[in-house]
Amino acid sequence: MGILFSIDKRSKEPVFRQIMDRIIGLVDSGALLPGARVPSSRSMAEQLDVNRSTVYRAYQELWSMGYLESRPGSYSRVRQRVRVASAPGKRRPPLIHWQGRCTGPTRDLYADSVRQAALVGPLAGGDVIDFVPLAPDSRCFPLDAFRKCMNQALSRDGETLLQYGSPLGYGPLRTVIAERMRLHSMNVSADNIIITTGAQNAIQLLVQALAGPGDRVVIETPTYARAMDIFRLVGVEMTPVAMNASGMDLTALERCLDRAAPVMIYTIPNFHNPTGITTDQVHRETLLRICEDRAIPLVEDGFEEELKYFGKPVLPIKSMDRRGVVVYLGTFSKVLFPGLRIGWVAAEEGLIDHLAVVQRASIISGNLLDQAALARFCRQGHYDRHVRRFHRIYRRRMQTAIDALETHFPRQHVTWTRPAGGYTLWVGLRHLQMDEPGLLRAIAAHNVRVMPGSVHFHGDCRALSFRLSIAQLDESQIETGIGRLGRVLGRLYEKRTSAHR
Amino acid sequence: MGILFSIDKRSKEPVFRQIMDRIIGLVDSGALLPGARVPSSRSMAEQLDVNRSTVYRAYQELWSMGYLESRPGSYSRVRQRVRVASAPGKRRPPLIHWQGRCTGPTRDLYADSVRQAALVGPLAGGDVIDFVPLAPDSRCFPLDAFRKCMNQALSRDGETLLQYGSPLGYGPLRTVIAERMRLHSMNVSADNIIITTGAQNAIQLLVQALAGPGDRVVIETPTYARAMDIFRLVGVEMTPVAMNASGMDLTALERCLDRAAPVMIYTIPNFHNPTGITTDQVHRETLLRICEDRAIPLVEDGFEEELKYFGKPVLPIKSMDRRGVVVYLGTFSKVLFPGLRIGWVAAEEGLIDHLAVVQRASIISGNLLDQAALARFCRQGHYDRHVRRFHRIYRRRMQTAIDALETHFPRQHVTWTRPAGGYTLWVGLRHLQMDEPGLLRAIAAHNVRVMPGSVHFHGDCRALSFRLSIAQLDESQIETGIGRLGRVLGRLYEKRTSAHR
Repeated sequence: MGILFSIDKRSKEPVFRQIMDRIIGLVDSGALLPGARVPSSRSMAEQLDVNRSTVYRAYQELWSMGYLESRPGSYSRVRQRVRVASAPGKRRPPLIHWQGRCTGPTRDLYADSVRQAALVGPLAGGDVIDFVPLAPDSRCFPLDAFRKCMNQALSRDGETLLQYGSPLGYGPLRTVIAERMRLHSMNVSADNIIITTGAQNAIQLLVQALAGPGDRVVIETPTYARAMDIFRLVGVEMTPVAMNASGMDLTALERCLDRAAPVMIYTIPNFHNPTGITTDQVHRETLLRICEDRAIPLVEDGFEEELKYFGKPVLPIKSMDRRGVVVYLGTFSKVLFPGLRIGWVAAEEGLIDHLAVVQRASIISGNLLDQAALARFCRQGHYDRHVRRFHRIYRRRMQTAIDALETHFPRQHVTWTRPAGGYTLWVGLRHLQMDEPGLLRAIAAHNVRVMPGSVHFHGDCRALSFRLSIAQLDESQIETGIGRLGRVLGRLYEKRTSAHR
Repeated sequence: MGILFSIDKRSKEPVFRQIMDRIIGLVDSGALLPGARVPSSRSMAEQLDVNRSTVYRAYQELWSMGYLESRPGSYSRVRQRVRVASAPGKRRPPLIHWQGRCTGPTRDLYADSVRQAALVGPLAGGDVIDFVPLAPDSRCFPLDAFRKCMNQALSRDGETLLQYGSPLGYGPLRTVIAERMRLHSMNVSADNIIITTGAQNAIQLLVQALAGPGDRVVIETPTYARAMDIFRLVGVEMTPVAMNASGMDLTALERCLDRAAPVMIYTIPNFHNPTGITTDQVHRETLLRICEDRAIPLVEDGFEEELKYFGKPVLPIKSMDRRGVVVYLGTFSKVLFPGLRIGWVAAEEGLIDHLAVVQRASIISGNLLDQAALARFCRQGHYDRHVRRFHRIYRRRMQTAIDALETHFPRQHVTWTRPAGGYTLWVGLRHLQMDEPGLLRAIAAHNVRVMPGSVHFHGDCRALSFRLSIAQLDESQIETGIGRLGRVLGRLYEKRTSAHR
């Protein structure tokens, strides 16, 4: 066979690849038929005036791609390829409509996420005051101390930390967490702890271990939107119980438990997301009594307990739990580094053991290196110092937000919470005849971004509402943002009043 | 009320806590009844001769625990606590039998894990040669280069990397992965990639997105044990198709597809776990054709493609996939750091988008810091250098293992694979009348640990077999270990022969 092509040695394309491409072109076009002999690498090299090893490399690639075949001591020949869809490099229309292959819950989740993204609107930039993000302010990250801890962990234990570990997580971090929990009167040891990929993964593990399709969980409404995502994904039925000013409506809860027993009750007693409500001691005791009486697992989604700015301290429900019905979820994402993705579940060992096998099936084990760096960070006192600093910073921010709401918001029709801690405030709008997208457009037009209330409800929500997070805003931004919101709301209610006249 | 207790100032227990404990004891024992007035903090401080702030602190804790209540300007009184199970500090028998609350699949998984742990036996120590671990040798970890990359990532982008990110993963790492895949002829871009918490999490995401209880997946048998864990956990039915010497039996596969269409076929074409088999070009093309003809998703669980030591290169099935039916799973755990927990899925964007919402519901987002450090590690050429080094090291180890098997193993009844790459070899024992635990005990008695074959089968496995992994053993350990195994097997077959006489 004579050589039917030439190559360009000045091209950026490597010569071996040019040779490959030419031969593939000849085969795909039918110019070279199966069985045709190709020149020896020596002969090809001479004719093209290139190094023989270059030709050899091209041939090797063609063998591996199934274009050529050779037997020892014989010439290479064009191989009869098993019919596959088409030639390399040319894409053909996808055979599979992937969305159609996804499960119903996955498709629903996807549709929800598209709808929510459209509702919340694009990321804020420029002059926009963004009350949406619920993650600590990176301007306040203790990066230097953490980098030192990371370096210590890598230098001293890198070989172990970069191997697989226990699905329960890094032992010393479990001990650190148990110690911190005991400071808040929760009677747990390291054996009661499993480290998770943030609190989100903690909810996921629980749901996977305890609930199957058709099972029932009780949630507060409104509640944390991403928790509902997990329940939906697993096909769990949600029974919403309304929040009132002091937390989940416990009378309504008991009525709903009388009808059917859920596999768990999910509650956020501190600085509730989205409403900002912190339940009091009586509410906590009563809720615990209800769960004990009926032996129903109570999932307490905790916020950093020390981030309470105002009023008496309240203790976690887990601290009163002598019968092991409370499953406590904790996380370092809310006041330290969300990106580390480190949270935990604290519960009876019998449950932790089962969460561990689910975790092993899901990810084998977590990232020990990050867990070890964090354990050092806590042990060396950096975390406590950081939380005290955050307490000072966010106490002022929250006070600023509450004062600004008093100053700027029309009091007659608008209600809002006065949170004792955390980052979120909840605003309710009564007697306003407009839909949520309209409200959000009006707010966005004033360069403010808020979290629409509807995403926190399971099913329909009756009243217009939105969530404000002060997590990433300093005091002057909070003051400015709430001022703008006040003006928007003022105008909307003015219009309404003039329309009514 | 007079003071009914004293405190010990020399005790290690802080004074405020002693005061708390005394009052709690009095309340719990009924000595102090609800409504009883407790002394003012001033009066209590005087009587106990302690600082008033100490008493105040004790009172504050008691308020927060619900033991006391106070109204502004009034004395504190013992509060009527809502009845909860019992007093703090005293544990009572758990109310909930957690195992009984877990789903059937979770309980089964737990029982399996207990059974398997018993079968595999305790961790090796001392003189034991351990052929069980399937994770790269930490003695060969490139720790210094990685620490530099981690420091660069933290110093330059710490503030961003420690925030939440996209559930798709860190953009630059997705680009690095796509570039590496293109070097292996896979036509993908960063948009086709989602980063996962190791390959295990990649399988989990796929199963969660594409399969529900009762759906069917086709697996090779034997196959990767942890993949079966995930299928079981989700309640997916597994249809096993036998492996023969060249890979999954494709005739059997077609017969089984004729009966019912699965949601996916799961295959490990390179250095198959556990058998070590690498399928050839024809097998790959044929398998792809079968999947294209029937529009069935083919999940290709890849091993580092470059870790092939012997024979011609073979290309990933994904490189021939022009119709988007192949879902490629990759990971950095097999040749770099398992502990980083970084893997990926490469597939059509329509699927990646849906995996992203499942990932967001599961963990919000992954750990961007580790992903950024790894992206730098790859970009700076460390990963390529490391893979070349691993290739040299493990090629020698695998050759040593294959040679040692030839030398030491009784050839008449024992079969084994001669892998072209990776870490695992598969040993089959014919005509041996003993059970697996007995075999493992005989092996353990010679200070060797192997992975029992049965854990890789779905349902019953007919023949005795075990997996050898050379991942954590140097050449002399491999030689010694296989020598010992040869002697065990020699004796077992000798006994058998003498028994037959």
